Amino acid sequence: MLRFAQFGAGRIGAIHAANLAATKDTQLLHIVDVNADAARVLAARHGAKVSTVSEVLADPQVDAVIIASSTDTHADLVIAAAKAGKAIFCEKPIDLSLKRVDACLAAVKKAKVPMLVGFNRRFDPSFAALQARVAKGEIGNVEQVIITSRDPGLPPISYIKVSGGQFRDMTIHDFDMARWLLGEEPVELFAYGSCLVDPAVAKAGDTDSAMIVMKTASGRLAHINNSRRAAYGYDQRLEVHGAKGRLIAGNRTATTVELADGNAVSADKPLYFFLERYAEAYRAELAAFVSAVQNRQPMPVGPADGRQAIVLAEAAVKSLRTGRPVKVG
Amino acid sequence: MLRFAQFGAGRIGAIHAANLAATKDTQLLHIVDVNADAARVLAARHGAKVSTVSEVLADPQVDAVIIASSTDTHADLVIAAAKAGKAIFCEKPIDLSLKRVDACLAAVKKAKVPMLVGFNRRFDPSFAALQARVAKGEIGNVEQVIITSRDPGLPPISYIKVSGGQFRDMTIHDFDMARWLLGEEPVELFAYGSCLVDPAVAKAGDTDSAMIVMKTASGRLAHINNSRRAAYGYDQRLEVHGAKGRLIAGNRTATTVELADGNAVSADKPLYFFLERYAEAYRAELAAFVSAVQNRQPMPVGPADGRQAIVLAEAAVKSLRTGRPVKVG
Amino acid sequence: MLRFAQFGAGRIGAIHAANLAATKDTQLLHIVDVNADAARVLAARHGAKVSTVSEVLADPQVDAVIIASSTDTHADLVIAAAKAGKAIFCEKPIDLSLKRVDACLAAVKKAKVPMLVGFNRRFDPSFAALQARVAKGEIGNVEQVIITSRDPGLPPISYIKVSGGQFRDMTIHDFDMARWLLGEEPVELFAYGSCLVDPAVAKAGDTDSAMIVMKTASGRLAHINNSRRAAYGYDQRLEVHGAKGRLIAGNRTATTVELADGNAVSADKPLYFFLERYAEAYRAELAAFVSAVQNRQPMPVGPADGRQAIVLAEAAVKSLRTGRPVKVG
Amino acid sequence: MLRFAQFGAGRIGAIHAANLAATKDTQLLHIVDVNADAARVLAARHGAKVSTVSEVLADPQVDAVIIASSTDTHADLVIAAAKAGKAIFCEKPIDLSLKRVDACLAAVKKAKVPMLVGFNRRFDPSFAALQARVAKGEIGNVEQVIITSRDPGLPPISYIKVSGGQFRDMTIHDFDMARWLLGEEPVELFAYGSCLVDPAVAKAGDTDSAMIVMKTASGRLAHINNSRRAAYGYDQRLEVHGAKGRLIAGNRTATTVELADGNAVSADKPLYFFLERYAEAYRAELAAFVSAVQNRQPMPVGPADGRQAIVLAEAAVKSLRTGRPVKVG
Repeated sequence: MLRFAQFGAGRIGAIHAANLAATKDTQLLHIVDVNADAARVLAARHGAKVSTVSEVLADPQVDAVIIASSTDTHADLVIAAAKAGKAIFCEKPIDLSLKRVDACLAAVKKAKVPMLVGFNRRFDPSFAALQARVAKGEIGNVEQVIITSRDPGLPPISYIKVSGGQFRDMTIHDFDMARWLLGEEPVELFAYGSCLVDPAVAKAGDTDSAMIVMKTASGRLAHINNSRRAAYGYDQRLEVHGAKGRLIAGNRTATTVELADGNAVSADKPLYFFLERYAEAYRAELAAFVSAVQNRQPMPVGPADGRQAIVLAEAAVKSLRTGRPVKVG
Repeated sequence: MLRFAQFGAGRIGAIHAANLAATKDTQLLHIVDVNADAARVLAARHGAKVSTVSEVLADPQVDAVIIASSTDTHADLVIAAAKAGKAIFCEKPIDLSLKRVDACLAAVKKAKVPMLVGFNRRFDPSFAALQARVAKGEIGNVEQVIITSRDPGLPPISYIKVSGGQFRDMTIHDFDMARWLLGEEPVELFAYGSCLVDPAVAKAGDTDSAMIVMKTASGRLAHINNSRRAAYGYDQRLEVHGAKGRLIAGNRTATTVELADGNAVSADKPLYFFLERYAEAYRAELAAFVSAVQNRQPMPVGPADGRQAIVLAEAAVKSLRTGRPVKVG
Repeated sequence: MLRFAQFGAGRIGAIHAANLAATKDTQLLHIVDVNADAARVLAARHGAKVSTVSEVLADPQVDAVIIASSTDTHADLVIAAAKAGKAIFCEKPIDLSLKRVDACLAAVKKAKVPMLVGFNRRFDPSFAALQARVAKGEIGNVEQVIITSRDPGLPPISYIKVSGGQFRDMTIHDFDMARWLLGEEPVELFAYGSCLVDPAVAKAGDTDSAMIVMKTASGRLAHINNSRRAAYGYDQRLEVHGAKGRLIAGNRTATTVELADGNAVSADKPLYFFLERYAEAYRAELAAFVSAVQNRQPMPVGPADGRQAIVLAEAAVKSLRTGRPVKVG
Repeated sequence: MLRFAQFGAGRIGAIHAANLAATKDTQLLHIVDVNADAARVLAARHGAKVSTVSEVLADPQVDAVIIASSTDTHADLVIAAAKAGKAIFCEKPIDLSLKRVDACLAAVKKAKVPMLVGFNRRFDPSFAALQARVAKGEIGNVEQVIITSRDPGLPPISYIKVSGGQFRDMTIHDFDMARWLLGEEPVELFAYGSCLVDPAVAKAGDTDSAMIVMKTASGRLAHINNSRRAAYGYDQRLEVHGAKGRLIAGNRTATTVELADGNAVSADKPLYFFLERYAEAYRAELAAFVSAVQNRQPMPVGPADGRQAIVLAEAAVKSLRTGRPVKVG
């Protein structure tokens, strides 16, 4: 039996709590949230207590914590949880500042607690199958990676303002995908960013459209394209080219229904957004965390992965600001 | 709170019990199975008691029963459960004999209990979406229905022998699909059956390959093709042609990964069999039952539907035996 | 150099003449048509003479004839051309009456002239590739064949009246496909026909919607579905199931463009009708004829194939009339 | 009647000559090639004379020339043909040096002769349909363009050495596609190039793998990925994202046949290389040239387009050499 406390009772918190409820040999003891109502509702739904951070950390029954609160709280919670000896499941990003990320990594290392960083896409059945087939050598040496990652619609400008910017908030997932698929660390990148969706984004100092290219030491290349708007839903595709062929992972749809009429042959749009597209991924991610803790095995995606994605995001920010390619690492 | 007892702790029973466990406002009180071990394991997993039929029927706490035991026990359990005033969720078929089916219908009618017959395919997201779009008139008046329904592999001959034959055991689902999609009752059918997969099937007096055509009063046409073997997995497709176009619902795959190499561009096979393909359908089916009972609404697929599928299966058996088309009542 | 005369300067005649013009080592000498204007235009376009039937048959320079005139003239022309020792390319059907077909076959046999019957679909790149892969054993023994064949729209009722009926006019192609793919001759069939598209068709004594099932001696099964209307264009698909898998040949589209928008992901409709879909097939068919004549090799589809398709069409007509399955001799 | 002379009797010359032979109201009078045998064979096939450059230019019967000889001869021939008042169909690139390209443009302008530059992809049915739909506003304002362009295999190193390098030889087509689809001129680009396919390419001073990003004045973004090797054939895809949706044009296949077996569901690889994939495009391109000359209409792709693609290629070369983004224009 693995006993949990969860920080955060918002949208993503609700998902993790529900997945935990469906996971054998686990129990959710505490919910913590600054929004007392949200905490109460979620706690009631899953038979947990509403608690404070210090109550959670002081509770010797708590084996593991899920950090699903707002980004600015992640680092403090990681450090505190590590000191308290709890296993840590932390939503991405660890923090928007690399310095604070490093403080987290140090705390986790010192406490020797296991930590998973919530790069949920690694657990998407299609993406995971693609990566496993790349790793197995099905397409030979990887040469190029192309990542399409486009959100269905712009978040509120208020969110944009505190998001850390498109590269740290959105592209961070794609940086993780690129590292995971390239089989080598990117050593340089170049980024273009534009504001094409809504001028309010530019006013807020951010971009809503981006294209990035990256290079590894041996010359492998990766491309990411991002947009905060895709009229047809959440566009999440991977494409890997190797010496022996190409692997593509496409979007998922709600149904396989196809209509042929006087206009066209038409099929479903992609699933709407991350809650729909990555529902299975969130379940598999939590299961992987639980299994790794229980079996004292390495985390499939750890703090160093969380750090490196931030490093790439910072490089992209610098590239955008300077208009120059930026060395990484 | 809707309280359940379940008859049957086998493969399909395990599915229903697990889905029930994930359904709010329900509780599983009893598990009944002639296999005591199976009953014990499933009951333990879901916090239910191992009980007998009479204990279940005598328990006033039990609101509803799930009948997922072997086919030959369905009719007696339906009748007994109806007399005991329980809502009934009955796996297909109600019975292999039309006479006994009619006895069940009479008992259910008399007792005025709600009853759902387990035609799970009606709850498959793709099939349900297709039917809803047909019903909405997206392709105009229905003209032709084509149903492909092929199992991945032959069941044991011991199963074949007690199955009631391919039409009653396998095609029965397709007869239900045809009725559901045609928008009119078939009034005549003609059936071919062959033994192409394994001569042992013919020895057991059954067929493993079949093609059926059906006609409604207004001349709408339907075709079903069946095989007990499909090397590539479970092939379950619907195609409906109407005055304004065509709707197709295809197979589902585990992933969207596609490999292009020196040989071909290749994608996943269809999901392996009904447990995989219809996992969502089983969940939705149980949810529909619970909701209909709780809200005292009509069942989406009721005893008359269960009967009519048997009527068509019997007609197909007769057509095969006589080599003639057979009128349907 | 192979020198041709062509009977028929209509739509299909224009196609054959153009294909001939693009075929090396061939020359078109004569065009014959009751419509003098059509003959003149086509002859002028290709540098041929407008001639009469007797002029063509008496011209020792003519090696081969293309019979692309109206169906009722086919048999007489075949017999006359055979007597005159010309190689014969005859559009389907040879004739609507089996007796006259047999007279043609006798004349061709006696004269020992090569004859190809215009079952163009055998030369469609996708259908030909599918059949070759079936023949190569890629899916093991054939078990079931499913043929979808639906025209984009109803021809004029005046055409329906002289067409010989849907089975002889339209399904005849599908009967040929079924024979070609089953690897065994059908020994029995059963046919349903309805009038769902336009009541005028029923008034003309014909059907516009049909479903047929067929059986071979070893129990292989085939299904054909036909409609005179498909709102989305010409629907021409083959599906063959064997012991080791399934081969499908789908429709062709003008482009590979796909639109994703707020409604759906939509692609091109199938190519509109036979002129578009089978353009390549018509070229390949003529090339195969020329090559077989020049190299004195057997015709890929000969008079016996033309006859057997008529036999099946007649059986279907009889099945529809009697409401019974019909043995095929 | 439009009378042609053609420079070049190689692979691409054979295609243009054959397409010309199938084009109404045209005649091929002369073939010129340094390879006398090749010239003789092609001239014989199409009833043309083998001639010299000066004979062609001095022949008043010649209305138009097709320049399909080696790249280093293009510029001189363009200038000479312009002076001689001939309409010019010139294979891409006009020249590898921008200076010489400008000399050509000046000559053409002065002579007021029509000139088409052979960017065949603009005439591919799928790409042309996609561009037309973008232009019609089907996806609103263009925001991002993604171009995949990968050859099936490495050309001989001897060819690489005289090709002008990957950007001028291969990417030049993609630069044209990007300009055509973006709806605005790129004002800056950044290029990565690697040698991943064969170290001999690096020895020859070239790259075999490349990724480029481009930006327009209003911030629209484009990405190109290139490889000299794709194990599965010629990979040629376009993807355009706009405010209202996404348009994709995919690869073409020889057939629509799909096999489902115990391993996968597999379809045809893309057509092998440009001769197969762009066969229709070459026909349409020549037809467009002939039609524009005959009707005195503007060329769909003119000398300025040929120049601008070279400008972008030179910018990419400079970016690769300096490791910096490069302003264009």
